[in-house]
Formats: sequence, C-alpha cells, structure tokens
Amino acid sequence: MPSRLIDSLATTDALSDVFSDQSLLQAMLDFEAALARAEAKAGLIPSRAADAISSAALAEGLDAAEIAREARSSGTVSIPLVRVLTARVQAADAASARFVHFGATSQDVADSAMVLTLQRAHPILAADHARLERTLREVSDGHARTVMLGRTLLQPAPPITFGLKVAGWVAAIRRGWRRVDSSARDVAVLQFGGASGTLAALGDRGLDVSCALAGELGLRNPEAPWHAHRDRLASLLCACALYAATLGKMARDISLLMQDEVGEVAERGGSSSTMPHKRNPAGCAAVLAAATRLPGLVAAFLTGMVQEHERAVGGWHAEWPTIAAGVQATGSALETMADLAGELTVYPDRMRANIERTNGAIFAERVVMSMTERIGRDSAQLLVSDALARSREAGTTFRDALMTMPDVADLLPAETLRTVDVPEMYLGAAETLRVQLLES
Amino acid sequence: MPSRLIDSLATTDALSDVFSDQSLLQAMLDFEAALARAEAKAGLIPSRAADAISSAALAEGLDAAEIAREARSSGTVSIPLVRVLTARVQAADAASARFVHFGATSQDVADSAMVLTLQRAHPILAADHARLERTLREVSDGHARTVMLGRTLLQPAPPITFGLKVAGWVAAIRRGWRRVDSSARDVAVLQFGGASGTLAALGDRGLDVSCALAGELGLRNPEAPWHAHRDRLASLLCACALYAATLGKMARDISLLMQDEVGEVAERGGSSSTMPHKRNPAGCAAVLAAATRLPGLVAAFLTGMVQEHERAVGGWHAEWPTIAAGVQATGSALETMADLAGELTVYPDRMRANIERTNGAIFAERVVMSMTERIGRDSAQLLVSDALARSREAGTTFRDALMTMPDVADLLPAETLRTVDVPEMYLGAAETLRVQLLES
Amino acid sequence: MPSRLIDSLATTDALSDVFSDQSLLQAMLDFEAALARAEAKAGLIPSRAADAISSAALAEGLDAAEIAREARSSGTVSIPLVRVLTARVQAADAASARFVHFGATSQDVADSAMVLTLQRAHPILAADHARLERTLREVSDGHARTVMLGRTLLQPAPPITFGLKVAGWVAAIRRGWRRVDSSARDVAVLQFGGASGTLAALGDRGLDVSCALAGELGLRNPEAPWHAHRDRLASLLCACALYAATLGKMARDISLLMQDEVGEVAERGGSSSTMPHKRNPAGCAAVLAAATRLPGLVAAFLTGMVQEHERAVGGWHAEWPTIAAGVQATGSALETMADLAGELTVYPDRMRANIERTNGAIFAERVVMSMTERIGRDSAQLLVSDALARSREAGTTFRDALMTMPDVADLLPAETLRTVDVPEMYLGAAETLRVQLLES
Amino acid sequence: MPSRLIDSLATTDALSDVFSDQSLLQAMLDFEAALARAEAKAGLIPSRAADAISSAALAEGLDAAEIAREARSSGTVSIPLVRVLTARVQAADAASARFVHFGATSQDVADSAMVLTLQRAHPILAADHARLERTLREVSDGHARTVMLGRTLLQPAPPITFGLKVAGWVAAIRRGWRRVDSSARDVAVLQFGGASGTLAALGDRGLDVSCALAGELGLRNPEAPWHAHRDRLASLLCACALYAATLGKMARDISLLMQDEVGEVAERGGSSSTMPHKRNPAGCAAVLAAATRLPGLVAAFLTGMVQEHERAVGGWHAEWPTIAAGVQATGSALETMADLAGELTVYPDRMRANIERTNGAIFAERVVMSMTERIGRDSAQLLVSDALARSREAGTTFRDALMTMPDVADLLPAETLRTVDVPEMYLGAAETLRVQLLES
Repeated sequence: MPSRLIDSLATTDALSDVFSDQSLLQAMLDFEAALARAEAKAGLIPSRAADAISSAALAEGLDAAEIAREARSSGTVSIPLVRVLTARVQAADAASARFVHFGATSQDVADSAMVLTLQRAHPILAADHARLERTLREVSDGHARTVMLGRTLLQPAPPITFGLKVAGWVAAIRRGWRRVDSSARDVAVLQFGGASGTLAALGDRGLDVSCALAGELGLRNPEAPWHAHRDRLASLLCACALYAATLGKMARDISLLMQDEVGEVAERGGSSSTMPHKRNPAGCAAVLAAATRLPGLVAAFLTGMVQEHERAVGGWHAEWPTIAAGVQATGSALETMADLAGELTVYPDRMRANIERTNGAIFAERVVMSMTERIGRDSAQLLVSDALARSREAGTTFRDALMTMPDVADLLPAETLRTVDVPEMYLGAAETLRVQLLES
Repeated sequence: MPSRLIDSLATTDALSDVFSDQSLLQAMLDFEAALARAEAKAGLIPSRAADAISSAALAEGLDAAEIAREARSSGTVSIPLVRVLTARVQAADAASARFVHFGATSQDVADSAMVLTLQRAHPILAADHARLERTLREVSDGHARTVMLGRTLLQPAPPITFGLKVAGWVAAIRRGWRRVDSSARDVAVLQFGGASGTLAALGDRGLDVSCALAGELGLRNPEAPWHAHRDRLASLLCACALYAATLGKMARDISLLMQDEVGEVAERGGSSSTMPHKRNPAGCAAVLAAATRLPGLVAAFLTGMVQEHERAVGGWHAEWPTIAAGVQATGSALETMADLAGELTVYPDRMRANIERTNGAIFAERVVMSMTERIGRDSAQLLVSDALARSREAGTTFRDALMTMPDVADLLPAETLRTVDVPEMYLGAAETLRVQLLES
Repeated sequence: MPSRLIDSLATTDALSDVFSDQSLLQAMLDFEAALARAEAKAGLIPSRAADAISSAALAEGLDAAEIAREARSSGTVSIPLVRVLTARVQAADAASARFVHFGATSQDVADSAMVLTLQRAHPILAADHARLERTLREVSDGHARTVMLGRTLLQPAPPITFGLKVAGWVAAIRRGWRRVDSSARDVAVLQFGGASGTLAALGDRGLDVSCALAGELGLRNPEAPWHAHRDRLASLLCACALYAATLGKMARDISLLMQDEVGEVAERGGSSSTMPHKRNPAGCAAVLAAATRLPGLVAAFLTGMVQEHERAVGGWHAEWPTIAAGVQATGSALETMADLAGELTVYPDRMRANIERTNGAIFAERVVMSMTERIGRDSAQLLVSDALARSREAGTTFRDALMTMPDVADLLPAETLRTVDVPEMYLGAAETLRVQLLES
Repeated sequence: MPSRLIDSLATTDALSDVFSDQSLLQAMLDFEAALARAEAKAGLIPSRAADAISSAALAEGLDAAEIAREARSSGTVSIPLVRVLTARVQAADAASARFVHFGATSQDVADSAMVLTLQRAHPILAADHARLERTLREVSDGHARTVMLGRTLLQPAPPITFGLKVAGWVAAIRRGWRRVDSSARDVAVLQFGGASGTLAALGDRGLDVSCALAGELGLRNPEAPWHAHRDRLASLLCACALYAATLGKMARDISLLMQDEVGEVAERGGSSSTMPHKRNPAGCAAVLAAATRLPGLVAAFLTGMVQEHERAVGGWHAEWPTIAAGVQATGSALETMADLAGELTVYPDRMRANIERTNGAIFAERVVMSMTERIGRDSAQLLVSDALARSREAGTTFRDALMTMPDVADLLPAETLRTVDVPEMYLGAAETLRVQLLES
C-alpha cells in the first residue's frame, strides 16, 4: 500500500517517480532486453528471441504489488519479474521464452536496475544543485557589504558580512556536489556476472556480452562483477549525506536567523494551522529532517557492506530501501533549499541593529588586540573588562565607556577609538575570503 | 508514486496496510472527529458540528498524493488535511465548518494519528511473536536431546543440544517482546496541547476536552502534551531494534547451519534464478536485512530527539519515515522468522556427524579439566596437545590417541577415558539451562 | 598511550576511574578470585588454591599496556590476564596455579568484569540524576508564574510559563532515569558458562558454582549464560541514549534561550580565548556533544548484536569501546547538566519583554478562537490578519489595532479585548500541567 | 585515567601514540609556535616573542590530565593550554607572554592540531595498506588456478578460483585506499580565522599570517576558515569506514572459510583460554569489530555537521572522540588484516574436496544452459532436477546420474557430459577478470 503521507517531506515528485515501481520495473526490463540483444549480437541466442524479449519488456500492465509479494519468498524481485517476463514472451513467441534472462543471475538484474535508476536521479539532483548555487552566488554578491554579527556558540562575536556567510555555504555545497557528482559517475557500472560472477554460463562469450550489454545500457563495463563489493554505492550515499549535512547547516543557520528576536532573514515559510500570525520555517524543517535521517541511513548501508563470499545473505537485501531513502531525502532537501534560497528575504537593518544592541561589546577583542602590544594581553583584558562593566552599568556604549577612562586615550589611537564600534572597520579579510570561497 | 518493489522485503501485507495513506488519513480524521465530539460534550462547539465533522471524517475519496504534495509547503500533512476536511464539512453544513480542528495544533493531529497507527501495528506484531515463540518452544522440546557442536568464534567447541540453542533464542525473543509490548503500551498516549501545549485556546475546558478525547480514541490522557519530548516513541523503536537484532542473530545462526558443508538445519528457502540445485536461505536474508537496517533507523530517531522548545524544526519532521520503516522492518523480520521456524528442517544425523568429524578434538577440554587437579593445567594441556597431534597425524580419534599414551590410564578414570568423546557425557547443565531458559 | 584530551568532554573524573585499566583489571581479578572461592566451596578445588588465587588477585603492579598489547593476538584481554595471574599464583604457591580460571572461558571473565564495572557506574549516574531532578524541581516551582513565549518551529507562540517548560524537562528525565535504572539492574547478571555455555567442564557442579559465584560478586545468577545474547547490555545503552537525548533537548533549549537577542536564561558558561565579553554556553556544548555521539554508539552496539552461535566473531569484540564510550558520555552530560542547572540564571524581565516585543501577535489565536463560534474560523482569521497588518504598519500593539476596528467590539467581550495581550490571561492549563508533570 | 584494555582491539601502538595526549599537546603547541613565527615575520609581534614562545612550546612537563579537566568548564582544551603556555613564556620572558595565541581563536588551535595529527596517521595507514595490497597480490597470483566453490547466500555455486576472490579484495582495498588517501590530503588544511573567521584581529596582515602559518605547519592555506564546515573531516571518516567495511567483508569471508567444516583457509589465529585444540580467527574478530563500529562513528560525525553560524555549540565538541576512534579502528583493522594476510594458510585440497562433496550439483546450471537452446529453460530445468534427484537418492554424482538418463546423450555434447563436473571447465572468464581486477 502506498504511503505518500509518511514520505511527504522525504522525497520530491521527480524523485518519487524515479524510484517508483513503474520506473524500477522498466529498468529491470531494460536490462533483460539489452541482455537479449547483446547475446543475440554474440550469437548466443537467436535475434528473433532478442526481438521478442525486447517487445515484451514493457513495465506497463505488470502487477508490481504481486511481484513484490512474491519477492518475499525468494528474497529478490528478480525471480518473479523474470517469471512474468518469460510468460509474456512465451505467449508471444514460445520458442523465444527459453532465452529470457539467459546466463544472468537475479542480482545482475536488480543491481543494474538500481544503477540505472540512480543515473536517472543524477541529473535531477544536478539541476537543483546548479539552481541553488546560482541563487546563493547572487545572494552573496548582493550582500558583500551587508554587515551582521558573527555568532559563535550562539553568542555575538565580531562582525562578518552576510555575503561571507553565504559564500561559505556556496563553497561547501560545491565541495558537496563534486563528491555526489563524481561518486554518481563512479556508480554507473554494469552488474553482470552470472551465478558466481565468472560469466561461466556464457562459455567464452561472457566478456563480449558484458561489454555489449554495458554499451546497450549506457553504463561502464567494470573490471569484474561487484556482487559482494558495494563500496561504490556506499560512497554515493556518503556523498549524499555529506551534501545533506551542509544543507542542514544552512537550514539551521536560516531558522536561527529567522527567530523573531533575531529577524535577520526569512524564508517564505509555511503557515500554521492555529496561529495566523506565524510564518514557519517549513523549508528549513524539511531540510533539517533530511539531515537528521541521512547519517542513520549511511550507517545502515555501511553495516550491510560486510557481505559474504560471492553474494551475500542479508547485507545486500538491506540496500534498496536504504539507498532509495537516502537519495530521495537528499534530493528533497536540495529542491527545498533551492526553492527557499530563491525566495529568501534579507533584513540588513535588523542585522545592523543586532550589532548595535550589543552596545559595542563585540569589539572588545579589537581593543584588546590594539593594546596588547603596549601593555600585554592580561592588562588589556582587565582594562577592557572594566570598560564593558561600565558600559553595562551605565547603559552606554562600549565606546563611550572607553572614552570615560583616563588611560585609554594613551593606549589607543584616536582614530581607532572613534571608530571602535563601526562594524565596517573590523571586517578583517572578510571580502577577500568571500571572493576566494566563491572562486574555490 | 508507490515503491512496493523497493520495500518488498521491508514490510508485510498487514503492516503496509497499517502505514498506508488510507490508514493514516483515517487516523487523522478519527482524531478530528473525536475532537469535535469531545468539544461538543464540553459545550465548546454545537453537537450538530460534531455530527457534521464526524460524518465527513472518512478517508475515502481523499487525494493522498495531493495532500502529501501540499504538505511540503507547510511542513505537515495536517494543514492540507484540515483544509480538505473543512471544505467537506462546509459543503455539507456550512455552519459547522468553523469548528473543524477547533483549538488543536497540526502536531496534535499528526502525533495522535501516528500513535493510533502504532496501536494498530501492535497486535500484528504480537500475533507473530506468539506464533514464533510457540513454534520455537516445540522445536526446543523436540530437540532437548539432539546433540550438536557448540561453536565459538565459528570454531568447534564442546557439544550442546539443539534444544538448548533454540531455548536461548526463545528467552531472547521473550525479553525482546516484553520490551516491545511495554513500550508500545507506553506510547499509547494522546497528543493534544494546542499551539504552545497549554490548551489555552480552549479556555478552562482544555483538560476536560483532553480527557474526553483520549477516551474517544482509546488512548491514555498524558500528564501533559509531549510535542518536543519524543522518548516514548524512541523507546518503542529501540525495543523494535533490540528484538530485530535477536531475530538477526537467529537468522545468522540458521544461515550458517544451513551451509552445505554444515547441513544441520534448512529453511524451506527460496529458489535461484539460475541454479536449479539451490535452496537459498531467503527467509534468513530478509530477517538479516531488517537487522541491518534497524540500528541506523534508531540512530536517526535518537538524533531527531534534540528538539527545540515547545515544537521543533526538523527533528520532528524526520520522525515519520523513520518510525514507519523501523516498525515495518521489525514486523517483516518477525513474520518471516515465524514462517521460517514453522518449516525448519533439522538434521540430527548431520549434527552428530559434524561432532564426529572433529575426531574428538572438542573433548580436549574435558580431559584437561579431569587431569588438572592431579598434574596442573600446563602439564595437562601439554599431554592433551600431544594426544591431539597424534590423532591428527595418525588420522585416529582423540580417544584412540589418548589410549596409546602410557600415562593417560593413570591420570584419567577408565570410564572417563572410555566415554571421552561421547557428546551426551559432556553436556554439563545443558538440559537444566534449557528448561530455565524456557521458563524465564 | 592515554588520550585524556580527546575525551576531555566525553567523561567525568568519576567515570573515567570506573572504566580505567586499573578498575577493569581489578574487576576481572575479582571474578577469578570469586570463582576460585566458589569452586572451593563446591569442593572442586582446594581451599588453599582459592586463598592463593584471592591473594594474588590484585590489580596493583600489573602492566595493563602489556596485557592490552597481548590481547590483540588472542582477541581478548582475558587470556593474557589469566596468564599473568597464573604466573603470580605459581610464584606464591605453585600447586595452586593449576586452579586459576578453572572451567571458565575468556568471555566469562570479560563480560562479568564489564557488568561489575557498569554496576559501579550506576550509583554515579544515579547521584547526578537525583541532583539534577532536585534542582530542576526547585527551578520549576520557583518559576511557576514566570511567563515566557512559547516557541514552536523557533517562532513565537502563545505564552507558557518557565515553570511548565522546566517541568517538561523533569518528567522527561524521570522517564529517562527509570529506563536507565531498570536496565542497569537488569544488566547485573553473572556471565559464567565455560567453553560452550553448558558448564560442562565442572561436571555436575556447574550450577552450584554459578550460583555461589553470582553471590560472591553480588550479581544475579541468570537462567543461562548469555554469551551471544547481548540484549540486556544493548538495552542499557539505548536507555542511556534516550536519557542523553533529553539532556540534549534541554541543552538546545538553554543555549537558544541564552542567545544575546533572547537573553532569557544564562548558564555560568565558559570564557573565550579571544573575546573578553563572551560567556559561552560551554556546558550546553558538552551536553549536546554527548547527545550527538550517543545515537551512533547505539547503532554500533545494535549492529554488533547479530552474533554467531555460542560465541561470536567480531560482534562481541566491538562492544567494550562502544559501551564504555556511551555510558561515560551519558554520565558526562548528566554531571554537566546537573552543574549547569544549579547555577542557571533566569531573567523573567527579558521573558516578559520578549512577549511584549511581539506586539501581541501571539495572541492572535486567542482572538480567532473567541470569534470562531460567532463568525467562523475563516472570517475570524481574516479579521485578525487585518488587525495584525494594521499593528505592523502603525507600530502599535495588536490590541490597539483591534480597538480601532469597528466590528471587533461586537465580536469580542470587552474584558477579553482589554486583556487580550496579557500573558497571564492566556496560559490555559499551564499550571495544572506543570504540577501533573512534576507528579508523574 | 587510561583505558588501554577497553581499546585493546581498537587501535595500534603507532596510532595510539599519534592520538596520545603528548602528541596532541605538541601539535597544539606547534601551532602556537608557528603562529608566533608567522606573526613575527609579518611584523605583528617582536621576533623575540616568537623565539620565546617557540622555546616554551614543548609538551614535555605539561599536565594533560589537568588541562583535560579544565577543558570541561570552557568547552575546549585550547583555553587551558594557552593559559599554561602563557605562564611558561611569562616565566621565561615576561614581555613576550602577551603575544601568545595572538589573534587566534580556540578552535583554530584545536582544529589545526587535529589536522596535524591526522597527517601523522596518514603514512601509518599508507604503509599497512601497501603491505596488505602487496601480500594479497601475491596470494592472488599464487592461487590463480586454485579452484574453489563460489558461494552465494552461503550456498554452493559454480566454481571460482581463490585467486579471483582475492583479486576482488585487492581491487576493493585499492578503491578504498584511493578514497582514504585523497580525503586525507584534502583534510590537510590550516584552520586560522580568529573569533569570527575574518582574521579581523590581525588588521590587514591576516591573510599574510595565514599563508605563512600554513607554510610553517606544512598545511594548505584554505580559501577561508572552515570552523563550521566540517565536510572534509567527515569525508575522511567516511573513507575510513568504506575501507574498513571492505576489510570486514574480507574478515567475514576468511572466518567463514576457516570454519572447521569448510577448512579452506586459516589465519594463524589466537588460542583459547579453555580449549587447547582451538585456533580462533582472532584477527578476523578484531577486523570485524572495527567494521561493526565504524558505521555508528560515521553517523555520529555526520550528525554533528549541522553546526550553527560561525562556530557551533555541541556539534563541534562531539568530533574529537569520534574521529580519533574512527581512524584508530580503521588503522587497527588494517594492521591486523595485513598481519593476517601475510600468514594465511590456504588449503587447495579442501577447496577441491568441498567442490566434490556437492556431487556435481553446482554444475546443474552448466547443463541447463547447454540444453536451453534446444529444449528451452523449463524443460532443461526439469530434466536437470530429475538428474539431481537421482544423484541424491543413489548417492552418485550428478554426472553419473545424467549418464543414466536416456535423453541426455542427445541433448549434451559428449565432451560436455564427460567433463560436466570438472571445475576447471566451468570457470568462465575467471582468470581474465582476476587480471583485470589486479590491474584496476
């Protein structure tokens, strides 16, 4: 029974299509058809059989629920699928039925179908990544000079620019995407080995068939079957999790900046069923949900990698729900973040106001650093602490407090004192770093 | 789009029904209907409204796919569900529409619906557990005297009985079930708190409504709403994982015993798409798949428990796919193991033969222990090692080798020497332990 | 080589003692000594041997680093430990050396020692839990009437009391502790089964020795050895993770409330190496670190539970670092939170000010609810949205905006309108729920 | 308190040195000394101060336990370390003390020290990988023609060569190492950003200092500080887990082949404390323990990546124990497997015998394939099933059974029938695949 509600935040329309019964059935049938054609080319089966099998290899009309149910007794969907396909070919051209799935093993079909499916997911993720990166670059450029609080351990720290913060996100998603992209390419390998992975059932034509089959399916022909070596798939899932973690970090940042008391950015957000005044960070919630789920999915996949001998009992059988969930969750987070970023509202005034409401305390470091050379850090810190205390007590700014202290004029250049709490004067290399991040 | 193929080994027919769109929609609607009735009882809304809402609260005809899609913009399925229900009531009795979802928050509906769903899963798991326990008890009793190798670190060790091994499984699944059962009961609490969990929207009638609502739904009325405290759900998932891990241990044992070289038990098994001679441990594979996936699902749920303030952003939104997958995987492992155990073939002859093919080496410990008192462990081990070496070289049994050694007759009672490799003579407390395990 | 720096936030002084080499060695030696005494009592070995073994069973002077190194070749610390102990006894009383570790297997010693170690950790956790609960109860009582914003999805929601929030924490840690406490008691079982778990090496005295040995060590005598059934240990680790997750939720809440822009509570906190003005939520950081690590540790332990036959290869060998890390992380979070809670500063004025700065928007729900009966929810929401917009535009309060609207006077009771933004008037059942939580 | 026993299987001598207190303290001090030199070069501090700081920056004599304890109140070891270093410099040259840690933040020191530590671990892992690969290549070449059962789902399947199996391992560890190697290089970046990551405290010299500091430490100067972007470290840990999973797969295979009933290979193994006859797969156990733990450690690290703003509260604080445990576990598995592989005993006779004891059933596929073209798969399977049943009943080989069947001579070439159960005749592309794997 379908459970779209449970997965409502866990996938996208496009990706749930890619991982649907229809799509997987077709991918498995594509494998069987391509296999027949490759074997006909190698002279192993009649071309008529290849034609008959190709014609029958259409997912339409197959009963996925029934195939899934049968899979429980054999441990794989391949066996009922082959049974159904054989029956179809039998009905159309009895003599060809014997050549269905010729020389392949169940896992050949299942793995190759999953690989084909992942290849269909790849461009969907790529498009959303490109959209997200493009959007964020614009946001970063547009806010190259928008000052805001740095925040460390959720406490105010010296200022940064919003452009720098966003550039940090850009560089991280670019690193993330490079990992997803390269591992998705790495995963694009045919699985074809027959019962024990030696292609023995095809006599001396195994490698030729393998090569032709890979060509038919647009996959690389690997150095050997990889029935019990799952590192390429695992690496893709790790890459997804790394990317999703960065998206989670962004969503955490945005949801924190969107707090009413902070108010520095806002996503378009979702409404509340009871509170008309609310604009919920619904996009951030969905992204954080993905980032919450991915680490466990990665752990499950890695755990399953300890697979026995030539084909495993259990470890392999755990993979499909895990990788399908992981890729869809990543894609959901990516689409959501791309949407969200495109509609992000930024409030530079609140950013500046939040700096100002610290009354200059975040510039204490600046003063300490300026004075350290003359009087040492300990003395500098004592003096600054004194100024901060005066500022708190009198409700004045840190700068005003410093000005009331007799020694300060001797220890700080007048210009430094005058501009001590001007954020633009204490941005260090923020802009250079921002540009470097975008170029990285 | 449904993905039954991907989940083919990950659920059962019964449980996929329980977690289906239809089922969840109905559970949410049941909440809304019960809420209306409880509020009518409390005089907060007209009984006519309660009637109209109850009448409209039928999942049939709702478009789950559309609701799931809308959920992505608000972060919850509750909001589109309430919208659709309100429209239905509006059409039937416009004046009543205003009382739909009166005073509740989105998470009240969603959480209570998940709790109701889990309550429907509970008896399904219970029935399979009972069936499995019953079957295994019979197997254990039937094989109370069937000797077999103990195996430690996958190496032969002194004998046990198959009855004892199975009794160990029984005790473990009983402990496992006690945890699942008690945490499933613990989870049977209403969620109802309104926006901030204070029931403020219902004035001074909040607690009365909560109490009546719990009664309507057959749930406990908790001490307070638990929107951001998810330990009861997490505890249920942990209990599932603990149970599934025991099932995984059993499946590992069975699949190992089913190796052709061992051949001591066999599950009915699945066929192979290429190898007509094979009987695959397909049941064990499905069970091990569940045991592989559960730890990561538990980790995901625990991770999501760090939830902010009164209702969380992200942690909560990660829960549904995780708990639904975890419970279904556990149920699938349980059903599969119950089926498998009911059809397990046991080969006592192979068990005895595998003992015999060690040529008595596994009884070395027995001789060492018997001699230790007289000559100390080191000397005893030397002497035994000597006998083992003779046995290996001459291809005779350990007993025969011992008999050729002059000192042995002085150090070992004749009776001990004569029966040194009779497994029944070296079972220790196996039978008492077996009975204690079954009674525990 | 010790690595206290790496684990600086991951344990406490007391717990690192409990899991130290010294402590584990002594626990293992305690097992060996108790075993000898139990066997002497059963007449299996001379009492003189029991005395000699007991006298030699002191951890002092043993070279833990050397034992650890040797463990790598045998896969267990028990074998080198027994070797060293035997040598000691040999030196003191050669005839007794033969009775060291008599009839036990390596895992008997190792598991029982870990169980004894966990029993020593139990009261340490208990004391910190009691201290934390006591403190939080006082805080909750002291702030029963301190109003603050409810916050859902990190956005302002109708008011709660700080006492209610803290009471939610109290109830959650109480549930958490009940799980830890009961699973720690459950884990207090002897491990003693000999090579295959049948106690065969002890002839017909196995069960007597087991019973006496359990008594000597203050542990329960289990229904049977549990070498390959690890659910009790796993359940303890799950309970730790559940508790730590609640502590993580509290730390998340506190660190959020401690943001400068929110400013509602403050932990004593840590200083910064560069920023003299900062008070970092260092305690929250340590607690959140534990909550971050526990889920993965639980997953690792659960994964290792799929153990082969009578004693496992690998799954068992993964347990020690996992359970030791998990219990210590939990204890560290608990001690830190107990310290932190005892020194928490609460700022009721800021709490009220943060309510006020929403200009009454969080009471929108109250008005909608009040009007719904008369004009339906949709109309009520429209009207309220209008008032909220006026309030935002004019910079006035929601109440003032309502007052300027002609219809409102007819739809809302005057008293409701007058007090519409008084938080104390919209607390619902907060106080009752608070009391119920503390009593739960 | 040290806990070498708990970690006895979880690290190596070399790696526990690398992650020891001494080593980390020195890495942190190296950072501080290099920072001072870089700042002196930039004219920010006197060279005399750089000299004084460099001279004082020796781990010897520092009290790691005390520093670890103090770290608990500030949340980082950097603060007490800087305090201690400052005191030392103060004692030696008071005027220089003010320049200790000048412009850096705690996390700069801690992160850079961890990066330096990981760089020291890198060549240790590299050496063991190279040794393992070299050994396995020799084993593969030496057993290019050693036939053995393929085994799928732990059941006998058509033959492979041991050389092919080992070549599959080689290709997998090579892929694994490429990931570890490249991510370890990727991780070799300086952390240096000051309070908010802008280097503001160093005025306009921040980037120069950063560049010089990276040079001093032999690290890359990154495009920007990465305080809250932890993907490079996470990627390294993922790579470790992927590699360890492959090692786990190898250990699983070896431990299964080492079962007494299978007896095809043996590791040198460990002894048993009670059973003189036993040779335990102790090396496999240690490797599998690592593979069991890594997925959870990866999950923990990924979870912690959702870090707030410029520097995080909690996520960062969870990293050290996780990454140190993960790298050490991987290194331990690698060293153990390299040792184990170097001493692996292979029993080609048992491999052949295990093929023979299937009585030819594993060649059923061969016959089915040969006949399919003529009579279709279904008829072929029926005929073969019949032959298999005859073979089982009569206790003869599958070949003999086939020979008794009248139709077979017409359907199978005589040569095929004669050699139907000769493993060498049914190896397919095994040798080509083996070579391709080794060359990949």
